[in-house]
Amino acid sequence: MSNEKKLVQAITSRNEDFAKWYTDIVKEAKLCDYSNTKGCLNYLPNGYAIWENIQNNLDKRFKEAGVSNVYLPLLIPESLLQKEKDHIKGFAPEVAWVTQGGEEKLEEKYCIRPTSETLFCDLWQKIVKSYRDLPLVWNQWNSVLRWEKTTRPFLRSREFLWQEGHTLHATSEEAIERTRQMLNVYYDCLTQDLAIPLIKGRKTESEKFAGAEATYTIEAMMHDGKALQSGTSHYFGSTFPDSFNIKYIDKNNQLSSAYETSWGLSTRVIGALIMVHGDDNGLVLPPKIAPTETIVIPIAQFKEGVLAKAHEIVATLQKNNFRVKIDESEKSPGFKFAEQEMLGIPTRIEIGPKDIENDQVIIVRRDTNEKIPVKIASLPQELSKILEDIQSNMYKTAKKFLDDHIYKATTFTEMKKLAQEKIGFIKANWCGSNECETNIKAETTGFGSRCILEEETPHNEKCIYCNKEAKYKVIWGKSY
Amino acid sequence: MSNEKKLVQAITSRNEDFAKWYTDIVKEAKLCDYSNTKGCLNYLPNGYAIWENIQNNLDKRFKEAGVSNVYLPLLIPESLLQKEKDHIKGFAPEVAWVTQGGEEKLEEKYCIRPTSETLFCDLWQKIVKSYRDLPLVWNQWNSVLRWEKTTRPFLRSREFLWQEGHTLHATSEEAIERTRQMLNVYYDCLTQDLAIPLIKGRKTESEKFAGAEATYTIEAMMHDGKALQSGTSHYFGSTFPDSFNIKYIDKNNQLSSAYETSWGLSTRVIGALIMVHGDDNGLVLPPKIAPTETIVIPIAQFKEGVLAKAHEIVATLQKNNFRVKIDESEKSPGFKFAEQEMLGIPTRIEIGPKDIENDQVIIVRRDTNEKIPVKIASLPQELSKILEDIQSNMYKTAKKFLDDHIYKATTFTEMKKLAQEKIGFIKANWCGSNECETNIKAETTGFGSRCILEEETPHNEKCIYCNKEAKYKVIWGKSY
Repeated sequence: MSNEKKLVQAITSRNEDFAKWYTDIVKEAKLCDYSNTKGCLNYLPNGYAIWENIQNNLDKRFKEAGVSNVYLPLLIPESLLQKEKDHIKGFAPEVAWVTQGGEEKLEEKYCIRPTSETLFCDLWQKIVKSYRDLPLVWNQWNSVLRWEKTTRPFLRSREFLWQEGHTLHATSEEAIERTRQMLNVYYDCLTQDLAIPLIKGRKTESEKFAGAEATYTIEAMMHDGKALQSGTSHYFGSTFPDSFNIKYIDKNNQLSSAYETSWGLSTRVIGALIMVHGDDNGLVLPPKIAPTETIVIPIAQFKEGVLAKAHEIVATLQKNNFRVKIDESEKSPGFKFAEQEMLGIPTRIEIGPKDIENDQVIIVRRDTNEKIPVKIASLPQELSKILEDIQSNMYKTAKKFLDDHIYKATTFTEMKKLAQEKIGFIKANWCGSNECETNIKAETTGFGSRCILEEETPHNEKCIYCNKEAKYKVIWGKSY
Repeated sequence: MSNEKKLVQAITSRNEDFAKWYTDIVKEAKLCDYSNTKGCLNYLPNGYAIWENIQNNLDKRFKEAGVSNVYLPLLIPESLLQKEKDHIKGFAPEVAWVTQGGEEKLEEKYCIRPTSETLFCDLWQKIVKSYRDLPLVWNQWNSVLRWEKTTRPFLRSREFLWQEGHTLHATSEEAIERTRQMLNVYYDCLTQDLAIPLIKGRKTESEKFAGAEATYTIEAMMHDGKALQSGTSHYFGSTFPDSFNIKYIDKNNQLSSAYETSWGLSTRVIGALIMVHGDDNGLVLPPKIAPTETIVIPIAQFKEGVLAKAHEIVATLQKNNFRVKIDESEKSPGFKFAEQEMLGIPTRIEIGPKDIENDQVIIVRRDTNEKIPVKIASLPQELSKILEDIQSNMYKTAKKFLDDHIYKATTFTEMKKLAQEKIGFIKANWCGSNECETNIKAETTGFGSRCILEEETPHNEKCIYCNKEAKYKVIWGKSY
């Protein structure tokens, strides 16, 4: 029992100290830990397995959307990074530089990619000649490096894992459509697979990607009310391709500009999974993303027939394509329960001598703690239903939390009061000026613009700060 | 017709100039091309899709062998790389160094990982305390960088994609067993999925990995008779872990050393796929690895009903889980055939008005060029059989080529003659001395030791070079 207690005590309560609760989960569930390479993470098996499942789900959606995977180099020559002026301005302060290769000091230094727009454009410049070569809809799964000063597991680290999609199109319409399509792919993956409800919108000028014409974003709300930018999709117009001299011969035999997009989603969403769904017992993983959907825990396993029956159940579930494990170690059942809860495994299956007598098992749901007796004969069907119900219940719960924590403000006094008293987002009108945006953030102690809502626009309404005519409805919130 | 001719003419004949034939295929099949980052490749969709399928097949085998995936940092602090003396000696001359991060000049420089033994050991030192923490059987899919001077697509480039597995064990026996097990996993994947026959063995002292006690290898023979090292598995003993002060408390409460292995397979095997199976019409891909198993090519597609029927067939095949494409572009059928052959798609399905009348299609095998009429009603079953037959036929053909090109030599005069007159490997006895090994390679113009055969040992036989007692039967060959 002492070990059992220790495991449970190791976690700070979520409401007591959210930041500490978060790092406790990361540590106790063995998701990742800090490497001796400063600001970089070791992604441990439990954490990486979550990323693998996110990758599998998202990559399948990419392929349905006509995306091909590629891989471009890790290193970018300095001269290449400098070709687009806004881009270099945005990224130069935070890249790492390779100045020596083997024994030789390099004539031109290389940076480790912070993102790969420049490499894609450099390649496209060589291979795109005619409209027949377009569109190019490419993606790569890789890691990038940005020399961050402060880091937090999954949320901000110098090196992080992500995917970066890059596309090139004959027309701006097609490129804009692709920008929105890929944001929707993220939206579907996060809401349907990760059970994370989202706000979808466009970034303001000051928040958009370095070099982009427009950045679209999906924003999730963590349990402390803060926003986490969970995926972005950028429309570049032709400025970026033009800087790299990408031109193609169109159907009318005219030399024409091409239009670019890029879009990325990173291991940051593992942070979102933790902070949207986790509780005081640890991680809670949605079944579609959980590396293990169910774990069989034998009760009184030393008694005759218990382990044999438990293994029989595992075999049946494996045959039915469940991701199933068994814990037949010598730890106590209570300790095993605590571990399963910490890891966020969506269900556990308890089976003891009495259950065997009754031809049943007890399924315990991680999300509600409900104990459900299920006949062994119908276990695969019942487990399937329960997992589906957990998936949709987790989304519903999180969606209610999100909806309950979006407040409308019509005056700046009201907004400041909400910012002080409530956790969550504030919806308020904005005139579009950089100055108002900066002042709002400063005077609400951190409520920055998360995104401009595109499906709602103000009609004869005023900017919450300057009272001039409002152009946009904006979601404001604190972020990490 | 001019385009068609151009596509076919673009390839040098394999027997005329093997090296040129190889680079022609890489280029014409659009597998990869050189980036402006010197010595690094852009992996294009066609090349990367092959790598993805290799990854999927191998990763599945890894998981069956109890391997967990992880991800460790890209950068290694200089002090960490230096902890094992043989290792730093082996790798220091070929690593790239990061000396600047953002605006700051770094106090300690970082190298970009050439391989990650040091990072794994550094992590294990922190987390391994008791025998209960062992074994650790981990792997990562990533890219590594070695500052090569000469490069060739897939065979040698500064940055390359691979997987590196790293394991830690309580006993040397268990570690040695794992070293061999993972070599066998490679062997099975290459022979069964890639249809590449192999020689399995152990590297000599001079050829083993920097810091390892023993390196095991699988060696494939390319169509020009040269050897390609296609995967290696290393046993480190406890030297490496000891250098990092990894110790654990064993079952008897004693502080004990741990035993390490590592094993890697890279995008190099794409080179092997090309050079083992390719022909004068282009790539030939084994069905299990081919991104597309079959492509439907409508004949006289402008005629009524042809395209509709072709799409119907595609739908049926997709429903039956085939990886299928259709080429309904305006190119001529001949041009489409040439493209399918260049890409190495294992089968094409021709369907024209006459075929439709007869309720049939023509399946054309890429490996034998055989044209097989198949009734539409039984297409999924027949295609399945044909693909299986292609897979096994490709292995048989390559195996016969390998067997036919291994020559036995009993005197050094004979060996020199074979080296001059034949392409392929030479099997000959060796005493085990470094001097003989070096002399053999020099005097045969390049026949180095590929591996020591472990299942055969000499009995009262002599070293082919010095005539002293032979310790090993060795496969000698030229390499890339």
